[in-house]
Amino acid sequence: MKVTRIMDDGTARLLDESISAPSFWAVIPAGGSGTRLWPLSRTARPKFLLPLVRRETSLLQDTAERIWAMTPPQRTLVVCGSAHTVAIARQLPEIPEGNLVVEPSPRGSGPAIILAAALIHRLDPNAIMGSFAADHDVTDRPAFERAVRTAIRAAQEDCLVTIGLTPTRPETGYGYIERSDNIVIDDDGSTAFEALRFVEKPPLETALQYLESGRFLWNASMFIWKCSTLLEVARTLMPDLLDAINQIVDVWDTPDREDTIIRVWEALPESTIDQGIMEKADRVAVVPADIGWSDVGDWHGLGELIEQDSVGNSVRGDIVQVETKRSVVWSETGRLVALIGLENVVVVDTEDALMVIDRNRSQDVKKIVGELKRLSRHELS
Amino acid sequence: MKVTRIMDDGTARLLDESISAPSFWAVIPAGGSGTRLWPLSRTARPKFLLPLVRRETSLLQDTAERIWAMTPPQRTLVVCGSAHTVAIARQLPEIPEGNLVVEPSPRGSGPAIILAAALIHRLDPNAIMGSFAADHDVTDRPAFERAVRTAIRAAQEDCLVTIGLTPTRPETGYGYIERSDNIVIDDDGSTAFEALRFVEKPPLETALQYLESGRFLWNASMFIWKCSTLLEVARTLMPDLLDAINQIVDVWDTPDREDTIIRVWEALPESTIDQGIMEKADRVAVVPADIGWSDVGDWHGLGELIEQDSVGNSVRGDIVQVETKRSVVWSETGRLVALIGLENVVVVDTEDALMVIDRNRSQDVKKIVGELKRLSRHELS
Repeated sequence: MKVTRIMDDGTARLLDESISAPSFWAVIPAGGSGTRLWPLSRTARPKFLLPLVRRETSLLQDTAERIWAMTPPQRTLVVCGSAHTVAIARQLPEIPEGNLVVEPSPRGSGPAIILAAALIHRLDPNAIMGSFAADHDVTDRPAFERAVRTAIRAAQEDCLVTIGLTPTRPETGYGYIERSDNIVIDDDGSTAFEALRFVEKPPLETALQYLESGRFLWNASMFIWKCSTLLEVARTLMPDLLDAINQIVDVWDTPDREDTIIRVWEALPESTIDQGIMEKADRVAVVPADIGWSDVGDWHGLGELIEQDSVGNSVRGDIVQVETKRSVVWSETGRLVALIGLENVVVVDTEDALMVIDRNRSQDVKKIVGELKRLSRHELS
Repeated sequence: MKVTRIMDDGTARLLDESISAPSFWAVIPAGGSGTRLWPLSRTARPKFLLPLVRRETSLLQDTAERIWAMTPPQRTLVVCGSAHTVAIARQLPEIPEGNLVVEPSPRGSGPAIILAAALIHRLDPNAIMGSFAADHDVTDRPAFERAVRTAIRAAQEDCLVTIGLTPTRPETGYGYIERSDNIVIDDDGSTAFEALRFVEKPPLETALQYLESGRFLWNASMFIWKCSTLLEVARTLMPDLLDAINQIVDVWDTPDREDTIIRVWEALPESTIDQGIMEKADRVAVVPADIGWSDVGDWHGLGELIEQDSVGNSVRGDIVQVETKRSVVWSETGRLVALIGLENVVVVDTEDALMVIDRNRSQDVKKIVGELKRLSRHELS
């Protein structure tokens, strides 16, 4: 099937290539600034734009490359804020201009993902889409692709599918998905199970039980579904949001697009796909997977992702150290960083801010950002 | 008594003012780079040139001001290396040009102080001189002046006199002076005692005994004597050095000065006043004093000298901190320094180097400087 070009502006490039049905489309919601990676990440320089895990490519570029093993840039949409559009366009020159969907303001994953699904559905009614955060890391790409393929098969059975990550620790900062033993798809070792429930960040004792049970998986907001399935479910569970999105999609190819999206978006409440759809929907499946995933959530975690020396120091930059262990040093300035007798410390050196913290307090970096906002030091936050 | 002007070059200014005999002259040996205060202090930017304890004045300027309460700039000599002459001349514009005595290369305190004594003695045969390091801090100036006055009175009795500091901890990094109970001068509460012996850096157990004994004092190389007494003692104890110094002084006011000092200095072995004179001389006295002294020897010590916040942080610069205690933060760059959950850490932020260390390892900063020299990174050392 050849999809005809239907737009008369730059967005026409969306369909420059012929695509087959049922096609797999990818959506990358590129939101969030990653305040826990301050001072490297800033409001104007969010985590996904930074080369964190690899030296030459940003997390966004890594995400796109991972996806493009399965579907081309022409079938990849990035949903982002207007402040980051230029940077994203430059980091991903392969992506057609019309595939950058700009949100007037952040309203959570609900509006962003449902808008993307509706735009794809309009072009390709049989499309299956996968949504993957722009700022996560995956080290085992074959395992990732295997899980996505199984998820696509479950999506073809009209399920809303998530990829659920095998927990490696009793993490209290993530959401969990409980699976049943009912198999939806068994795909040569990769299995989609019926999902029983989604649980928000649990207390430690509960997280420990989840870890031991073997039935709970981390929710990393990786969703795979037919666009038509999602839109049908949204009609029941989030009807107001779907109406709003349809108002936008109806005028997408007209001069009214910008005015309409600004007006409609302004009135939208914040919502997430997890709470608005996944926690309430009936046919939800989860594909357990062990793909070397990380949300690159804080300095401690980033330190674990990059190469370490023999005493556990993770270093980017020019350092001289004496008896320093298990520390993370990240310098962007080219200055020498000298360390003596430290353990479990994080040092981050940027042009206008220097941060030194106990590595065990990595989660508290957002307190610094909060304090800077309180002090109206917006140039630094 | 009016001392006649006897020189026909710039050094003539030395005697621009009339002086009375016995006059008190001050000598400031300005040597040593203070590697333990790296990265603030460097070979080209030694400790004494830096505003460390006070924000507006360097340690050298503080030292000069302290001395000038007792004798004018015209009777103050600074002995320094050629690399620092310009900076010293600018920091101390009050000092006559001829009072800056430039060593061709460092040879220890022996040559520097005996040369200064010989130059003063030549101009003022009855002079009493005091020698005070350029990079120490004294907070109790009245107590300092009282001790110097008592030392001058003991010097008039032909003693070589030191000011010995009441120990406040069992420091193993300093030399000690043991006093006897024999009083040389009792000057209304300030007393010069006969000194029994000088001891180099003792082991901890010995230092503890010294602290308890009440008879041991820290040697901070503050010496007061008649120039004539020192030169007589040197004639016996360091005759080769005295001969060499006299060769220089003999041609000081002639065009041969520069050639001679370079030639003579080159051949001199390193020596110190402590080992060469004080440890061996007969009539040595010590004035115990409690003057709020510090050698500003390392970052830990400097942190104790500057103002502290309510949780013991000593800060110079723009910082935002969360639950950080007893730390020293020094930023010269204007950048924000953000800290979380640290205790007993030192952070020093300069344009080309950043240092973060365990505060208890302050003595080991010289290891970094040594490592930089080993790596031939001389621009940083």
